[in-house]
Amino acid sequence: MKVIVIGGIAGGASFATRFRRLNEQNEILILERGEHISIASCALPYYLGGVITDRNALIERTPAILKQNNNIDVRVRHEVTAIDPARHRLSVKNLDSGEQYEETYDKLVLSTGARPVLPPISGIETATNAFTLRSLTDGDRIKNYIQTEAPQQVTILGAGAAGVELAENFRQLGLSVTLVDQADKVMQPYDIELADFLEKELEKNGVDVKLGVTIQLVADSGRELHLSDGSVLNTDMLVVVTGVTPNSEIAKNAGLQLWADGHIIVNNQFATSAPDIYAIGDVIETTSRITGLPIPSLLSSAANRQGHLLADILNGEPLHYPGFVGVSAVKVFNLTASMVGYSEQTLQAAGITNYASVFITPFDHAYFYPNAKRLNIKLIYEPDTGKILGGQFVGENGVDKRSGELSAAIAGGLTIDELPGIELPYSPPYSAPRDPLNMAGYVGINQRQQANQTVKYDDLTETERCDGTFLDIRETGKTASGTIDSDLAIPLTELRDRLTEIPTGHTVYILYRKGLGPYNASRILAGNGYDVKIVTE
Amino acid sequence: MKVIVIGGIAGGASFATRFRRLNEQNEILILERGEHISIASCALPYYLGGVITDRNALIERTPAILKQNNNIDVRVRHEVTAIDPARHRLSVKNLDSGEQYEETYDKLVLSTGARPVLPPISGIETATNAFTLRSLTDGDRIKNYIQTEAPQQVTILGAGAAGVELAENFRQLGLSVTLVDQADKVMQPYDIELADFLEKELEKNGVDVKLGVTIQLVADSGRELHLSDGSVLNTDMLVVVTGVTPNSEIAKNAGLQLWADGHIIVNNQFATSAPDIYAIGDVIETTSRITGLPIPSLLSSAANRQGHLLADILNGEPLHYPGFVGVSAVKVFNLTASMVGYSEQTLQAAGITNYASVFITPFDHAYFYPNAKRLNIKLIYEPDTGKILGGQFVGENGVDKRSGELSAAIAGGLTIDELPGIELPYSPPYSAPRDPLNMAGYVGINQRQQANQTVKYDDLTETERCDGTFLDIRETGKTASGTIDSDLAIPLTELRDRLTEIPTGHTVYILYRKGLGPYNASRILAGNGYDVKIVTE
Repeated sequence: MKVIVIGGIAGGASFATRFRRLNEQNEILILERGEHISIASCALPYYLGGVITDRNALIERTPAILKQNNNIDVRVRHEVTAIDPARHRLSVKNLDSGEQYEETYDKLVLSTGARPVLPPISGIETATNAFTLRSLTDGDRIKNYIQTEAPQQVTILGAGAAGVELAENFRQLGLSVTLVDQADKVMQPYDIELADFLEKELEKNGVDVKLGVTIQLVADSGRELHLSDGSVLNTDMLVVVTGVTPNSEIAKNAGLQLWADGHIIVNNQFATSAPDIYAIGDVIETTSRITGLPIPSLLSSAANRQGHLLADILNGEPLHYPGFVGVSAVKVFNLTASMVGYSEQTLQAAGITNYASVFITPFDHAYFYPNAKRLNIKLIYEPDTGKILGGQFVGENGVDKRSGELSAAIAGGLTIDELPGIELPYSPPYSAPRDPLNMAGYVGINQRQQANQTVKYDDLTETERCDGTFLDIRETGKTASGTIDSDLAIPLTELRDRLTEIPTGHTVYILYRKGLGPYNASRILAGNGYDVKIVTE
Repeated sequence: MKVIVIGGIAGGASFATRFRRLNEQNEILILERGEHISIASCALPYYLGGVITDRNALIERTPAILKQNNNIDVRVRHEVTAIDPARHRLSVKNLDSGEQYEETYDKLVLSTGARPVLPPISGIETATNAFTLRSLTDGDRIKNYIQTEAPQQVTILGAGAAGVELAENFRQLGLSVTLVDQADKVMQPYDIELADFLEKELEKNGVDVKLGVTIQLVADSGRELHLSDGSVLNTDMLVVVTGVTPNSEIAKNAGLQLWADGHIIVNNQFATSAPDIYAIGDVIETTSRITGLPIPSLLSSAANRQGHLLADILNGEPLHYPGFVGVSAVKVFNLTASMVGYSEQTLQAAGITNYASVFITPFDHAYFYPNAKRLNIKLIYEPDTGKILGGQFVGENGVDKRSGELSAAIAGGLTIDELPGIELPYSPPYSAPRDPLNMAGYVGINQRQQANQTVKYDDLTETERCDGTFLDIRETGKTASGTIDSDLAIPLTELRDRLTEIPTGHTVYILYRKGLGPYNASRILAGNGYDVKIVTE
């Protein structure tokens, strides 16, 4: 059997090496139009920042190694210009020699990935100091520009993971960094409570963060950026990391079915609509393991996993892809942000409104052991079933640990009710007897049991607002963070002793900010005969 | 309803506070014979080492706080001397005043814990410099002795978690430390491959580790320790942390059913054999969530979880304890050791022989990002089903992350085949596109698929040994670590090109050390028509 793989960066190389291990006889050919295969793309920001100094380290496998170790033919700078699914033939162009030729295949694997999108800004195409960052070749260009032109001021357009990582690494080089995004927060899929911490961390480390603005015009060969707020930014360099689009043109031209956004449609064994053609990685849309909805899986870790699995499937194993969760981590100076599954933002974008959330800020390890820091955890779940929809984690330490644990819990189908039952490694340097993830579960359980006792302020009638007692139970000296005015303030620790101060006969509304306090207060009041509800904004 | 809790350290305090939150009306009384409740016992070594300086931080809750915040009565220095299950009555003694009185209960919760066992060594009872370490009072005594007597040389008997933590902390104080254990390795439940790293780390940091010896005689008021190997140790201080025994005497005297080792027998709702009497924590034996066998749950995290769950159960929730996994972490100077479930040692002790293991040593995060270190992972599973039986992890970074993830996977009932499918947070500072835990799963899957191709050297006949070709596939320059002699050495990377060197007609035995190499070599040879087996020692 002859198998051709188009694209050798992440999923393609994983597929090919696994497929070779499963079978010595098959002929395997990788066609890659770029200069390299098997690149650690996620490492590029750190290479630019000088954190990773060895360029060779970014190249996980060379064509020579794949030939030597795996008996796989690799042709870089060879572009597939057309696929003929009926005849099982490809048209290939050698980009260096210009030579064109045909190849036949028994099975074809599309791992063509995605490419950066340049936003339609007047002047950006002709700017001599503007770059995108996707391939090692892109990275080489930026590194070379920095070394030869010695820019002092760099502007990054796009405050997603790549933009934020670049900001940190350019600061590492001593550059002045401006980070621009049209959204009103950094790290787009994160909800505002978490993104706020990241924005502050960027600013604390000298990054000028400009949100809610776009670049409308690039002038002076890229040295002048005219923003939508009327201001003008002078910059020595512009890096655009605003998003990617799937490299699915050859698939489309060959008649394969695509989603409206250009991703290739595959089934749960990565088969496309054409016989003997499979696709993996950034170019496909798969289904969410959590909601079952279509979702792109734009992570190199997902591409690797899919490539490995497809090799088993093409080798005859009756396996299928369980779907994509989406688990990521980003270092933002001294903070780590990590996300699993959905945020409120992505749920809303998917049209899902039936969810509730837990937000807690426990210490990452025992508070009495040195260097304990607050860990911000937001967990989102389905209130009627307790199904976990996603988690967001921001803090200095132990962040990726909790997101990894949550992802394992989701893979096992655990509900939020089952989180407290997960035994997690405890010793004072590492955690508390009840790990933060256990605590998030306990709070979720309490919320679910109290679900009919929680109301949104906006859902209260005018009468309810007038008659009810709005109770603030924070300890004295805590600063206010909510916007609902309270009628009465009694610290939780004094509540039992001061019950007589609370009017009877009407509902007591406990103002919810975060944590277990409102829940504990509601238990005390309900246990003493009050009609009590927790009110959220 | 009146509920009495005997013992307020870990599970008892957790039970009481949760039970109060569930119901305001019940009367809750904690009787604790020691001086404190709610102590962070696991922090004691760090308090002694000066890492934790605030003694108050070790006391998570005082009786006054429990009264104030939770309306719970706590009486410390009150010992329960007898239980009368039929009459629902307790005999209580005030240890300070000597007063004796009776209490009645509707429900009784035994959270009496365990106490250190002093081994029967002649002279140890009268040594003035010998200590155990369990309670805060014990910790105070040791701290006081160090401050007033300024010992230079300390001997620790027992190289389990507490002994190892104490060794690190006493070194932190600049003391000379000798660690003695009768076993032939440190950190008893860990298998030797992992324990070896820990022993070396202790020695590297100046701890004199003496294994396979016992103390036979304590002389000169504790200043002279006569060891079983004939040597004599001079010491200024001796701390014995060799093990604990359950405080189940009052339960036994009241007629409750105990296991042979003295732990109280409970069902999966913590009910003992006596009506309205429940027990949690170190004093009970529960069942393993992995094997279903009886197992003590000697971790404060387990006691806390059990206390919380029992409160829900006594409040009428139809819940049950899913069983104990056993997840722990220990800091050993610059290393972390963490364990989940069973080791080979504990499996063998439980009479279980149907298991296989994976041992891999990947980097904890992307090898090209600074400070990547080897993480040692041993995973044990059931070969026929792929069920995960346990994991052991030793390394500098990311150790507790992987054990936590594995524990979550076990809680969700995932098999080793499903480990690669868990999406784990990747970015170069945190992991690789295939996380070490994913890799362990891949290796396990390969092993299972190859199960009939793996043989133990001892199981080979003399003829098989003579006829077969024993092939060493390590790269040139790697030092030997096994004891089976090879007939032929061909590095894996040269294997395809040098196939003609390998005799045909008889089985090729690939020597197994670790990792994926032998598997890959077997795939190449099998794919080229060889009868091939991987041979283990």
